[in-house]
Amino acid sequence: MKIGPQTHRSSSISASNEQTILVRGRDLASELIGEATFTDYFWLLLTGAMPSPAQRRLLDATLVAIAEHGLVPSVVASRVTLAAAPEALQGAVAAGILGCGSVVLGSAEAAGRFFTQIAQRAEQGMLQQDAVAAVVREYRAEKRTIPGYGHPLHKGQDPRALRLFEVAAEVGLAGQHVAIARSVERALPDLVGKALSLNVSGAIPAVLLDAGYPLLALKGVPILARAGGLVAHLLEEQQRPIGFVMSGAAAAAISYDGPAPAGFKPSDEASGGA
Amino acid sequence: MKIGPQTHRSSSISASNEQTILVRGRDLASELIGEATFTDYFWLLLTGAMPSPAQRRLLDATLVAIAEHGLVPSVVASRVTLAAAPEALQGAVAAGILGCGSVVLGSAEAAGRFFTQIAQRAEQGMLQQDAVAAVVREYRAEKRTIPGYGHPLHKGQDPRALRLFEVAAEVGLAGQHVAIARSVERALPDLVGKALSLNVSGAIPAVLLDAGYPLLALKGVPILARAGGLVAHLLEEQQRPIGFVMSGAAAAAISYDGPAPAGFKPSDEASGGA
Amino acid sequence: MKIGPQTHRSSSISASNEQTILVRGRDLASELIGEATFTDYFWLLLTGAMPSPAQRRLLDATLVAIAEHGLVPSVVASRVTLAAAPEALQGAVAAGILGCGSVVLGSAEAAGRFFTQIAQRAEQGMLQQDAVAAVVREYRAEKRTIPGYGHPLHKGQDPRALRLFEVAAEVGLAGQHVAIARSVERALPDLVGKALSLNVSGAIPAVLLDAGYPLLALKGVPILARAGGLVAHLLEEQQRPIGFVMSGAAAAAISYDGPAPAGFKPSDEASGGA
Amino acid sequence: MKIGPQTHRSSSISASNEQTILVRGRDLASELIGEATFTDYFWLLLTGAMPSPAQRRLLDATLVAIAEHGLVPSVVASRVTLAAAPEALQGAVAAGILGCGSVVLGSAEAAGRFFTQIAQRAEQGMLQQDAVAAVVREYRAEKRTIPGYGHPLHKGQDPRALRLFEVAAEVGLAGQHVAIARSVERALPDLVGKALSLNVSGAIPAVLLDAGYPLLALKGVPILARAGGLVAHLLEEQQRPIGFVMSGAAAAAISYDGPAPAGFKPSDEASGGA
Repeated sequence: MKIGPQTHRSSSISASNEQTILVRGRDLASELIGEATFTDYFWLLLTGAMPSPAQRRLLDATLVAIAEHGLVPSVVASRVTLAAAPEALQGAVAAGILGCGSVVLGSAEAAGRFFTQIAQRAEQGMLQQDAVAAVVREYRAEKRTIPGYGHPLHKGQDPRALRLFEVAAEVGLAGQHVAIARSVERALPDLVGKALSLNVSGAIPAVLLDAGYPLLALKGVPILARAGGLVAHLLEEQQRPIGFVMSGAAAAAISYDGPAPAGFKPSDEASGGA
Repeated sequence: MKIGPQTHRSSSISASNEQTILVRGRDLASELIGEATFTDYFWLLLTGAMPSPAQRRLLDATLVAIAEHGLVPSVVASRVTLAAAPEALQGAVAAGILGCGSVVLGSAEAAGRFFTQIAQRAEQGMLQQDAVAAVVREYRAEKRTIPGYGHPLHKGQDPRALRLFEVAAEVGLAGQHVAIARSVERALPDLVGKALSLNVSGAIPAVLLDAGYPLLALKGVPILARAGGLVAHLLEEQQRPIGFVMSGAAAAAISYDGPAPAGFKPSDEASGGA
Repeated sequence: MKIGPQTHRSSSISASNEQTILVRGRDLASELIGEATFTDYFWLLLTGAMPSPAQRRLLDATLVAIAEHGLVPSVVASRVTLAAAPEALQGAVAAGILGCGSVVLGSAEAAGRFFTQIAQRAEQGMLQQDAVAAVVREYRAEKRTIPGYGHPLHKGQDPRALRLFEVAAEVGLAGQHVAIARSVERALPDLVGKALSLNVSGAIPAVLLDAGYPLLALKGVPILARAGGLVAHLLEEQQRPIGFVMSGAAAAAISYDGPAPAGFKPSDEASGGA
Repeated sequence: MKIGPQTHRSSSISASNEQTILVRGRDLASELIGEATFTDYFWLLLTGAMPSPAQRRLLDATLVAIAEHGLVPSVVASRVTLAAAPEALQGAVAAGILGCGSVVLGSAEAAGRFFTQIAQRAEQGMLQQDAVAAVVREYRAEKRTIPGYGHPLHKGQDPRALRLFEVAAEVGLAGQHVAIARSVERALPDLVGKALSLNVSGAIPAVLLDAGYPLLALKGVPILARAGGLVAHLLEEQQRPIGFVMSGAAAAAISYDGPAPAGFKPSDEASGGA
């Protein structure tokens, strides 16, 4: 039984034999290890070419911007999982990565698609501000959130977004997508009735698309970055464990409102065991 | 390049063609759907034979015993993950299952291995109580926990363990492993200096090994059972979301004790975003 | 920082104290273990009420129907993962569950939403066949697949779908959604230009929605069922490992078409190690 | 109910308020974004201090060395998962990371512990070669594999291991652990009866421990690196899908050897659907 597409039967990323590992056509041992930074190498893996210094600095800036923000949901899931299953660090990292979803960390990709739609209209001859208004109105008509704007903590400007735009300008890569991102921010009060600042998940796709980073790999930036942050949290979890404290506090914040026999009294601390 | 064992190239679980799906030699559509319960079928998948009514009732009892215990760590991880990534229910279930580890839910397997070691000594002619003492002492010498005993909440008898032993007796399947589990419980005060009651993760392998359930699939019981419990929590999470409340409470229970510039004051609620 | 909805702070699934574990208002040890089947209990966890015998038989039938179909993608991912990480059975189950996605196993949920849209139009007074035509045309206009129809192997009737409809009729629960599912099958040749038979992922939501199973938990049925099938495969993988054989065969089916230095020759067996 | 350690209730990684995100005491926006490379930042997250140029270059070298090696098991699991569940890139990355286990990628950590045990004996006054012999003999007595030596493809020297040792020497960080790793390689023919070359998973901990990288985060290096490689494979999977081809080839390599009714003939291509 054959399911799904069967047209492709090749890959262009890597090949090897007993002496050599080839990655994107380069000899891994002699040309890349010790020469490329990990960020260079990630760009090479994705695109087949080494980044320019400007591209590398921008990609580094976005990875640094999104790797860590304290005990956010993905970190809670990850540390709780290591506490329960310390034999598998990879499982705890995976549990954290599974929280890079459409609501919390994956909005970088959604914002990238949003900016791209606006850019396509502009390329077809529409004025940028008209393209912004048209696409924002379509999102509103479909009751979709405008991705990349607003933040529960950083209610003024998200300092990470501001800094990413500065870096893009410094390295000379700020272009159409950055301009669109700013244009949306200016237009939102009129279009949706309140001011919403660009957040880090909006700034990342704006600067990366201007730098030539591939749209379909945008979600890979928060995922890769967060993998780094999770490893640091899991090192701390091994040394100063808080996973079960967090799990217990989470349970204690929730009361039981289902049926119960007369006189049943739940424990003060709601839960934690198995 | 070939890694790992290459000797086996066959599987005996299932085969199919355009008309028929064969599972363990039976026609899925005509012999199993509508005839077997899911618990029957799980036993058939594992062993190649249908369970007796006694075996089925015992397996059902263990699955029911371990499926749900409120907002335990695996449920916290799972609901937090769905809140962040509602587009992938499978990811939230996976995040919860990753917490079925050696500390929290996977101890059923460790307890099964522990009882099996005692049973093997007894089969080699040692008196059961001597076998218990010998194996407990080896675990202590290696500083390993005695798996299957003690519980943070149910400090007296774990009501689930007691009930599983009753069911095993009712269906006539209580045997050597149940006897060993009881014998360990009686011996622990002398051997380790404190009384520890058998918990549900000790009772499950005792009754299942007596029923002929395979040792190497013991961890599958809490994993499968918990998958059912997680689906129920994720249905509730879609209808009455508490994932972000739990994540916020988890973060708020933890303070920051790293370096900070003079005058820096963290937000009251420590975290939650991205 | 508070993200996401904060309105709910309670759960109605389970509560406990030192003596008692309460699930949906019932005493787990005295009322459920040894009394309820796992399928009963899953229904109770989801809905708060025990199923009727007819509902239980139907839910069992759907779980049996979808638990196992040989070395499908999710099983390949799971067995390969256990081969690489035998210390964490839960990780291998999780890897398999992550493949219960929109393309392969999660279409049960999509089909359930599709049938529900048709049912809503019919409830608003449209003739059923008109409602079918209207919703199918909308899916086609949005270039969406009609979920629940067609199968790469079972090109005639999917024997599992046929049998599920028989069971629904036997237990007297076949109703509006089953009728809609059949009506769509009859209408497809005219509406989309080719005959496509109902598959198992279309039959499952049809019979379950008629039985009163909750729409938002439909994807839980293939996920829970597949968890059972995966545990059986992982038992076999421990006893007769084929994970690395499968991984090697997968790699050997793909050639390298990227750049390479003159004279570079990849190994015959493309890969497998680290 | 309280489970597990409850002594720690703080974390030293990150804190934030409306204006500032603090990471390891530094202002993320003004001190780190655009200044630190992602590799610098990963080291800072782990250790609380910025790496020296030598430490950074070595960490980059190890991440580059292990990020990618073609269609290895973790990549097969990941691409197959994206094919089945394209709505959740994070799920496909997680499935791949779950294969960073004790057999395939996690042996870097095991090798780090092995070298550390030898180093501890040497620090207690044993001659290095005696410490090597003693620890190797203990592993053999416990029937444990010597981690970090031998490779299924690179049967002579693993070119990545050689290059990592060169880089460690170039940056002046090669020390005791590199010396131990070499010493083990020289001693293995006598101690285990055959020559086994150091592989990349042995070289990574040797050079990183000499550089001051924390032992308990060693497994994080292959996990983080592989996350990068997986994102590249998943970008290619979106553009030129091979997931279902690989899954079908994996299934086709395995025959069914279970019971079957007379005349049953499995399909030529064993599997693929649901």
